Amino acid sequence: MPDPEATIFARILDGEIPCHRVYEDDHVLAFLDVGPISRGHTLLIPKERVASLHEMSPDAGAALGRVLPRLAGAIVKATGADAYNVLLNNGARAGQEVMHVHVHVIPAYEEAGLRHGWKSGTLDADDAATLIASIDQHL
Amino acid sequence: MPDPEATIFARILDGEIPCHRVYEDDHVLAFLDVGPISRGHTLLIPKERVASLHEMSPDAGAALGRVLPRLAGAIVKATGADAYNVLLNNGARAGQEVMHVHVHVIPAYEEAGLRHGWKSGTLDADDAATLIASIDQHL
Repeated sequence: MPDPEATIFARILDGEIPCHRVYEDDHVLAFLDVGPISRGHTLLIPKERVASLHEMSPDAGAALGRVLPRLAGAIVKATGADAYNVLLNNGARAGQEVMHVHVHVIPAYEEAGLRHGWKSGTLDADDAATLIASIDQHL
Repeated sequence: MPDPEATIFARILDGEIPCHRVYEDDHVLAFLDVGPISRGHTLLIPKERVASLHEMSPDAGAALGRVLPRLAGAIVKATGADAYNVLLNNGARAGQEVMHVHVHVIPAYEEAGLRHGWKSGTLDADDAATLIASIDQHL
């Protein structure tokens, strides 16, 4: 019986919902986004079923990172796009809608692509030291 | 003698320019972005010196993917951010400014974070088949 709590990506992994499959191996699945921002917009997901990137095991992260350059290269060649964004939204506030880790590969064309605002601040040296010490403690 | 063509990130890797180092191993370096979008904004770069993600070797991709979940987790704990975006801009049109692969980890707060537009289209089934065949040919 299907798990009513399963995300749509888990249901794709289980074969309950079809997808436009682009690539698959033992650790990851890639398929076309059905609501593409631009032509060739592809999702790459781990078969490990976790909502957040930081919950992924090192091995699952490595498997995803291993295939991503090759997948991006094939998308570039297939679409002719000369640029692309790779985006992972983690958590509702960051725009995550499906609570299963997924990496967007979004070709950038003149007429379509990811539009992002970029409002840079300036790193404060004292705060940098505080942050580094705290990150280091949690690594 | 310094290479006048070297990117700023290559010069950081060579120790010519200092950085606020967060993490380093044989394959990657992570450091705080000096122009942060939000507190804890961190860059993760491969030591392999290529401009584009799709030029990276599978091993370099795997090394980057292996550490990214752990790094993201430490940033979450250090900043208290409950969400974040992971973004890679590849190519000038996509917003890449330094021509050395770099992954942004950008904590998302109510008051600051990556702002992205999300203008979804609808995937055409015929075009999906064309795309899949073409991507498959280049994988």
